Amino acid sequence: MKYSYVSHLECPKCYEVYPKGEVHHLCSCGSPLLVRYDLKALSEAMSPKDLMERELTLWRYHELLPVEDPGSVVSLGEGMTPLVPMTKLGKEMGLFHLYMKDEGMVPSGSFKARGAAVGVSKAKELGVKEIAMPTNGNAGAAWSLYAARAGIKATIVMPVDAPEITRKECIVAGADLHLIDGLISDAGQVVAKAVAEHGIYDASTLKEPYRIEGKKTMGLELVEQMNWSMPNVILYPTGGGVGLIGIYKALLELREMGWIEGNLPRLVAVQSTGCAPIVQAWQDKSRSSEFFENAYTQAFGINVPKAIGDFLVLDAIYETNGCAVAIDDATMLKELETIGRTEGAFVCPEGAAAFAAARELKQKGWIGEEETVVILNTGQGIKYPETVKVDVEVLRKGESLSRV
Amino acid sequence: MKYSYVSHLECPKCYEVYPKGEVHHLCSCGSPLLVRYDLKALSEAMSPKDLMERELTLWRYHELLPVEDPGSVVSLGEGMTPLVPMTKLGKEMGLFHLYMKDEGMVPSGSFKARGAAVGVSKAKELGVKEIAMPTNGNAGAAWSLYAARAGIKATIVMPVDAPEITRKECIVAGADLHLIDGLISDAGQVVAKAVAEHGIYDASTLKEPYRIEGKKTMGLELVEQMNWSMPNVILYPTGGGVGLIGIYKALLELREMGWIEGNLPRLVAVQSTGCAPIVQAWQDKSRSSEFFENAYTQAFGINVPKAIGDFLVLDAIYETNGCAVAIDDATMLKELETIGRTEGAFVCPEGAAAFAAARELKQKGWIGEEETVVILNTGQGIKYPETVKVDVEVLRKGESLSRV
Repeated sequence: MKYSYVSHLECPKCYEVYPKGEVHHLCSCGSPLLVRYDLKALSEAMSPKDLMERELTLWRYHELLPVEDPGSVVSLGEGMTPLVPMTKLGKEMGLFHLYMKDEGMVPSGSFKARGAAVGVSKAKELGVKEIAMPTNGNAGAAWSLYAARAGIKATIVMPVDAPEITRKECIVAGADLHLIDGLISDAGQVVAKAVAEHGIYDASTLKEPYRIEGKKTMGLELVEQMNWSMPNVILYPTGGGVGLIGIYKALLELREMGWIEGNLPRLVAVQSTGCAPIVQAWQDKSRSSEFFENAYTQAFGINVPKAIGDFLVLDAIYETNGCAVAIDDATMLKELETIGRTEGAFVCPEGAAAFAAARELKQKGWIGEEETVVILNTGQGIKYPETVKVDVEVLRKGESLSRV
Repeated sequence: MKYSYVSHLECPKCYEVYPKGEVHHLCSCGSPLLVRYDLKALSEAMSPKDLMERELTLWRYHELLPVEDPGSVVSLGEGMTPLVPMTKLGKEMGLFHLYMKDEGMVPSGSFKARGAAVGVSKAKELGVKEIAMPTNGNAGAAWSLYAARAGIKATIVMPVDAPEITRKECIVAGADLHLIDGLISDAGQVVAKAVAEHGIYDASTLKEPYRIEGKKTMGLELVEQMNWSMPNVILYPTGGGVGLIGIYKALLELREMGWIEGNLPRLVAVQSTGCAPIVQAWQDKSRSSEFFENAYTQAFGINVPKAIGDFLVLDAIYETNGCAVAIDDATMLKELETIGRTEGAFVCPEGAAAFAAARELKQKGWIGEEETVVILNTGQGIKYPETVKVDVEVLRKGESLSRV
């Protein structure tokens, strides 16, 4: 049995086909490429129970990943994050089956580790020696760390406003880090120029086709954790949108293989009111988004004014009868605190936005109380210390606690 | 079959026995109490293969944990952290079988989540409504979060110098946080007074007997991950020492049950030269430690000048032919950077100290190149941003990267 059932790359816009085993970035038509697998052969060769004794990382799904030689795998033990019942919070929201898939519990503390693990492994397999990418922080941190492990040089450009801890992660991994006084779109222009001038491997979101395959594993794990069933609704904080695209792709592949059946979950893209290009496009019933001017939100990971994969995100929403919701920063931060006090989870602001969106959609009747709802918390709250204000007294030695 | 095979509590110093199912703290002789199980009955009722289909958390070992009613379990999905091969770093050190068990990948990003999960669950089972504890930061953060999930009020006292992010975790969980201008020992006095005056449940290290049971699961997981075999050496960053005591207890219990056999790994307690009471005691061949004056280290988690369980740590070292090693802060931080650049892992300074100790013990010939060595990285590097200095240029929009 083969380690990977990857067959080729395909353009989801013009259906041009590209061979596997070579470096490819965007299609000649400008669209991102998607990785295709021989799902028919795989579904004949394998069944879900074959996974049971596999390692507890995302590599347990290696047949559905693009890396062909197990020796290329660069792993820090990522994947199989917990699906945590949020019973008390759900009850408070009027949702009786609310779960959080906690993506904080991976190396580097954000779901970006999944894309980095698979993307860097495939780059290593393709013989890449140097990568460059723009980032809102967490992706750059994850790619720097996995690149270090693979022995690949990484050049990272991130906004000065990106979470400060992610700079440290890049530096500790020995990456060539640059800050820019601008947005991720400005960082993207710097990287594009460097890539064109110096022939570096472009690891920008969706400009390399493998990151999405790593993120796809969130969907694979979720249905395996639910014993090969699906929730009714999945809410995902959406910046570049690769997580949502990946989950959707995973569900389509599993359904084609016959491992799951029936309607897919309604997919919800959650954005900030300060940066809501997908929400605007969805409200306009458009198939693509417009550049969102003057973007700003404390949920920095979703501060993406125009995503290259916007049409794929919108497809996923339309095809699953999903929707797109924008949450303002104050509501998001209030939700973050409620989650901490109620469930003991310190989520990232992006994750908190998705919880606030679930609350809002329940209030509007878009989600029913008996529906099973899964929220992806895309990273650890500890990466965003500024979301929590601390104002406490300092005792001197020998002092006592005053009791209220 | 019972959910837990807990039988009673026992004093490891005077062998006094206390019944399970009641609140107990220290023995009347002043020693911490240990939880005992009916290992004979358990070994007859169960074998390792019964674990195979269990959930991927530390609760998979519930028979060897003190919580008797599954309804008491307070979980955020903690446990089953990866055992990561550190091949490149090991080769550089001359160690051909070097592994890191990465305790950063649990809720709150440090191994303290294990003790908190089991300790809070048992407190809930015992009907506790309010807990108090001193902490060097990470334990307070973890206990605050699990207490919030359990609906238990938490009062936390930590040094002002403790990692700042841990304050935020306490606050987001709604804990009653106090800072103190002193060490954890000073915080301990404040808590002791509050406990005596207000009848709060004392959750201080080893003053409640269940935290150690949570930490024990690191040892259970490790041998399960090694297919019920043991490494030759385990290195553990040692402050209060509960992690090391817990791993030792786990190995003894598994051996008594016949699930593992042979010599136990040599256990190595790793401290900082700035706070090395266990190392001093070991060098003096003593069975207990002296208060370490003027303690200071950047590895704040091991800044414990006198541990209540010191004699248990020293026992574990002596009984396994282990040793104790002190690492200075500069060496530790250099090792932290080497680990990042070589293996792509951003470890905490305490974890880095343990790697530096492995390097030193290999150089001295105390560890042989063919021995299997496991290092516990007790938390994520991102909780200690000050360990990495960032000094990079800020580009303006439209600027290009200069290539060296």
